[in-house]
Amino acid sequence: MSTVGFIGLGNMGGHMARNLMRAGHSLVVYDANPKTVQQFKSEGATAASSPADVGAAAKEIVTMLPSSPHVREVYGGKKGLLETLKEGSLCLDSSTIDQSASIEVAKAVAERKSIYLDAPVSGGVLGAQNATLTFMVGGAGGKPELLTRAKVLLDKMGKNVVCCGSVGSGQAAKICNNMLLAIEMIGTAETMNLGLKMGLDPKKLASIINTSSGRCWSSDTYNPCPGVIEGIPPSKGYEGGFGSALMAKDLSLAQNAATTLGAPTPLGSLSHQIYRLLAQHPDFQSKDFGVVFKFLSDSKQ
Amino acid sequence: MSTVGFIGLGNMGGHMARNLMRAGHSLVVYDANPKTVQQFKSEGATAASSPADVGAAAKEIVTMLPSSPHVREVYGGKKGLLETLKEGSLCLDSSTIDQSASIEVAKAVAERKSIYLDAPVSGGVLGAQNATLTFMVGGAGGKPELLTRAKVLLDKMGKNVVCCGSVGSGQAAKICNNMLLAIEMIGTAETMNLGLKMGLDPKKLASIINTSSGRCWSSDTYNPCPGVIEGIPPSKGYEGGFGSALMAKDLSLAQNAATTLGAPTPLGSLSHQIYRLLAQHPDFQSKDFGVVFKFLSDSKQ
Amino acid sequence: MSTVGFIGLGNMGGHMARNLMRAGHSLVVYDANPKTVQQFKSEGATAASSPADVGAAAKEIVTMLPSSPHVREVYGGKKGLLETLKEGSLCLDSSTIDQSASIEVAKAVAERKSIYLDAPVSGGVLGAQNATLTFMVGGAGGKPELLTRAKVLLDKMGKNVVCCGSVGSGQAAKICNNMLLAIEMIGTAETMNLGLKMGLDPKKLASIINTSSGRCWSSDTYNPCPGVIEGIPPSKGYEGGFGSALMAKDLSLAQNAATTLGAPTPLGSLSHQIYRLLAQHPDFQSKDFGVVFKFLSDSKQ
Amino acid sequence: MSTVGFIGLGNMGGHMARNLMRAGHSLVVYDANPKTVQQFKSEGATAASSPADVGAAAKEIVTMLPSSPHVREVYGGKKGLLETLKEGSLCLDSSTIDQSASIEVAKAVAERKSIYLDAPVSGGVLGAQNATLTFMVGGAGGKPELLTRAKVLLDKMGKNVVCCGSVGSGQAAKICNNMLLAIEMIGTAETMNLGLKMGLDPKKLASIINTSSGRCWSSDTYNPCPGVIEGIPPSKGYEGGFGSALMAKDLSLAQNAATTLGAPTPLGSLSHQIYRLLAQHPDFQSKDFGVVFKFLSDSKQ
Repeated sequence: MSTVGFIGLGNMGGHMARNLMRAGHSLVVYDANPKTVQQFKSEGATAASSPADVGAAAKEIVTMLPSSPHVREVYGGKKGLLETLKEGSLCLDSSTIDQSASIEVAKAVAERKSIYLDAPVSGGVLGAQNATLTFMVGGAGGKPELLTRAKVLLDKMGKNVVCCGSVGSGQAAKICNNMLLAIEMIGTAETMNLGLKMGLDPKKLASIINTSSGRCWSSDTYNPCPGVIEGIPPSKGYEGGFGSALMAKDLSLAQNAATTLGAPTPLGSLSHQIYRLLAQHPDFQSKDFGVVFKFLSDSKQ
Repeated sequence: MSTVGFIGLGNMGGHMARNLMRAGHSLVVYDANPKTVQQFKSEGATAASSPADVGAAAKEIVTMLPSSPHVREVYGGKKGLLETLKEGSLCLDSSTIDQSASIEVAKAVAERKSIYLDAPVSGGVLGAQNATLTFMVGGAGGKPELLTRAKVLLDKMGKNVVCCGSVGSGQAAKICNNMLLAIEMIGTAETMNLGLKMGLDPKKLASIINTSSGRCWSSDTYNPCPGVIEGIPPSKGYEGGFGSALMAKDLSLAQNAATTLGAPTPLGSLSHQIYRLLAQHPDFQSKDFGVVFKFLSDSKQ
Repeated sequence: MSTVGFIGLGNMGGHMARNLMRAGHSLVVYDANPKTVQQFKSEGATAASSPADVGAAAKEIVTMLPSSPHVREVYGGKKGLLETLKEGSLCLDSSTIDQSASIEVAKAVAERKSIYLDAPVSGGVLGAQNATLTFMVGGAGGKPELLTRAKVLLDKMGKNVVCCGSVGSGQAAKICNNMLLAIEMIGTAETMNLGLKMGLDPKKLASIINTSSGRCWSSDTYNPCPGVIEGIPPSKGYEGGFGSALMAKDLSLAQNAATTLGAPTPLGSLSHQIYRLLAQHPDFQSKDFGVVFKFLSDSKQ
Repeated sequence: MSTVGFIGLGNMGGHMARNLMRAGHSLVVYDANPKTVQQFKSEGATAASSPADVGAAAKEIVTMLPSSPHVREVYGGKKGLLETLKEGSLCLDSSTIDQSASIEVAKAVAERKSIYLDAPVSGGVLGAQNATLTFMVGGAGGKPELLTRAKVLLDKMGKNVVCCGSVGSGQAAKICNNMLLAIEMIGTAETMNLGLKMGLDPKKLASIINTSSGRCWSSDTYNPCPGVIEGIPPSKGYEGGFGSALMAKDLSLAQNAATTLGAPTPLGSLSHQIYRLLAQHPDFQSKDFGVVFKFLSDSKQ
């Protein structure tokens, strides 16, 4: 079993790292928070004092960081990975960041004769904990042996690995899916609220939509109207789930890409603005993103 | 077999009326276009010279008209149905109109001791032709015998009858579904276009979305990006299908309802504006509503 | 001095009626609230028990009502004005309503050989109180003697009378101005908030805009950022001024017209949605419409 | 008279550089296009072969470049200004770029013991040619002697110099003004189009708005409805003026800032999307930005 470097031990990364340890890998870990590193040391990992230390100790490295600047710093900053990376290393970056950042870092890693794959995830904290994440991998298109090498680690942290194409395509797939998801969630919230005001029973309305051309995941699996589907965050006060502020972040990545590439996204752009409003509202920012139903309906504000 | 009155023999109504005749019903028909009436006379129907003539001749009446003012006029205008309607008549109105218009006409019909059900359809011209329409029925909620009576006719023109609740609930269900459909169609078009510009293969992107939280009917069954799904209008030059101008009309009904009831619908409202632009554009107005993909992408304008 | 009929003695109409009395006119008044009528009786007006009573008693009639259905009812309902209107009467309707409603009522009044002018106002409650309203008059275009007759009354309630053209043009002018006003107010709020976050001093930013191509009434006269202009509602906790819920109502009239006429109004439509959200929010609905600055900025929600 | 370095001799920069030469300054010039450099050499300027050559030759340098990456490259790239910049140099950057890019470059220049001021302009090509530009200067706030030094050059290229505050505040002021301008232009276009459809005369409507609360520069000085104001681009087929694609670029800078800073800008964001659509449309991209009137109205598409 190879020694794995792991950088970024937060809500998601912490669980992912533990799943690798459970599978038998030795870990060399780094996090901006020294207490987190100490905690992992007490669980058996080797503590590193910088990304460069990680690069010096392992040839398979996973990074799980909150934003593009963090990734640029961990790879290219002082005492960054690029300073020590050994030839032939494989960097799996599960951060959700700007596609342009992934492509830029991949180039720098290639100059070190190593490989960077973007591998953002879906599945949330529960998926990280239970090793049921889906990885959207960019950079392994047409390179089956590389994908096989990556899957040795990814399979221990998730259950699906989707090969999306060249470097950055993992980010593209995640950003695109989540932009459409946000549009559908807000759209479903608007529609449920309008239907209620028009006198429809919410479960009846959902059942009609779900067998019609309006059906989507947000209507049939994660309906934001409380009580339509039991057991999901919208029926539990929007606790848990995928936070509105996180959705705002993913939408900002979509907008960055759309602006840079000149792609018109009127609904994606307005959805970004709506989640931007939710993200700055103390009642909504940390609630599940289905809470847009509550934001739009007048009953409970 | 009862004699059935039929008013409104256009693209949809013509096929529906013929399906009733094929099933053995005698028809008394009226249309604003005398040539259409003559054509039906030559096919064996009895020609009426006004809606009032139809009301005098039949106790089961189907109306299929283009807009709220037409429905108000056919029922309540000079020589309208209300002048002659016999006690105990059943009026099935398959027009897609403002909910408030359905409710208003239903009241006037009730004063004539008869019954009005709103029963708008989905399925398009092909569904009308092949008797595979879905009817969303309002006014028969909690009245199984009434629904049974209506289904005698509806089952000959379609394959699904959904009981939505009280009068106007059929309109509500259709309007809500179609508003969400428009949002998802535009959202999918934006997402596919953005994904292509980010370097993704369109079929690959669709397949990822279709197994993820972004999936919807517009992505997995009617993807607006040409070539992703063969055999549908978006892959055939957006010919046939559901016209952009018709979608603009349905969205205007949703906006009327939302404005009257004070329901915020930011994405539904913006979708209305986008289809409004398409509806006035000679290249787009009569094309399938998936053509919004072409409107948003720069390649072919 | 002629006897004037006055229907609708609310926040605006009450002041307007009193200004006519002060100028020496005898008034015959009606309001849906009997207490209000009694109050005016105690001030010297003649109380009427219905609009029809008003129509029977005066040939110059002012109506000031909250919405299209109220106007339709007061004119065309049971015991409505149309039942008793004398030939040659002049009806001045200062209500802000759908253009289509004004045109419809004007036709019915013309059938009674009388004249209906739409004459909606700007200037608010203070303008009504101080007789400084602006009237936007429709129906007197090309008819100077008619305008002169109307101005006998209008000049006592306001200081400006703008002749806009044919019947309904008064509504059109008011609705158009207020839609643009809403867009500019929200736009200014967004811009001031963005500028602050970019590190600009708000007064400095306003002064730059106000001498540049971005200047508008909402930036140079009624800036929604507190403290930029002293003495206006945005600098006094958004108290007084023009309420957000009233702006939502005017925007709904603009949207009704745009939908009926097929005019794309993407920003007008989104502005309507934003004021719709404010109008249902207990903290914002009765505050001055500049409060959208607070809604958009994160500091105080 | 000091020797001035000038980098970026395009549509704007070419005129600005010539105005400095006319005023008596010796110029050392660089442009990515060697032919342009040769042209200036033939007019008496000294040709430089790189930005570094310019930095070595002059202590007052003006840069006028199309986008943030160009500015980063000219200053920080290989053979960039930063390689040779002499202590005490003054760099005046008239490019319209991301505020964050200005701040970043200013820091790097400060490390060279020199000063960078952002000084974006308004006034267009005509303003550059006639030396009537307005400069919005960031970085000279509270430093009158620095502003005086900058004005020695700026006054020869324009007629107004506005001191906006610290570094980046010039970009902020320009971006904010232009975002509001775009909102008002589209809003005016929507309003004029709606008013026409409601039966109003366009000049009458404009005159009402221009004396009411809806007035703005786009309604009273640059009305996008052809014929309302003679002599401006909207009345000359939208030729000349400020191109739609340039407006799309400025709006993208506003969106970048709003996204980075978390400022909700629903109308600014939708305006960006609308100019994005215009910018990719062959009929609209190079037309004056008032052409949005034509895009929204159905008459001429």
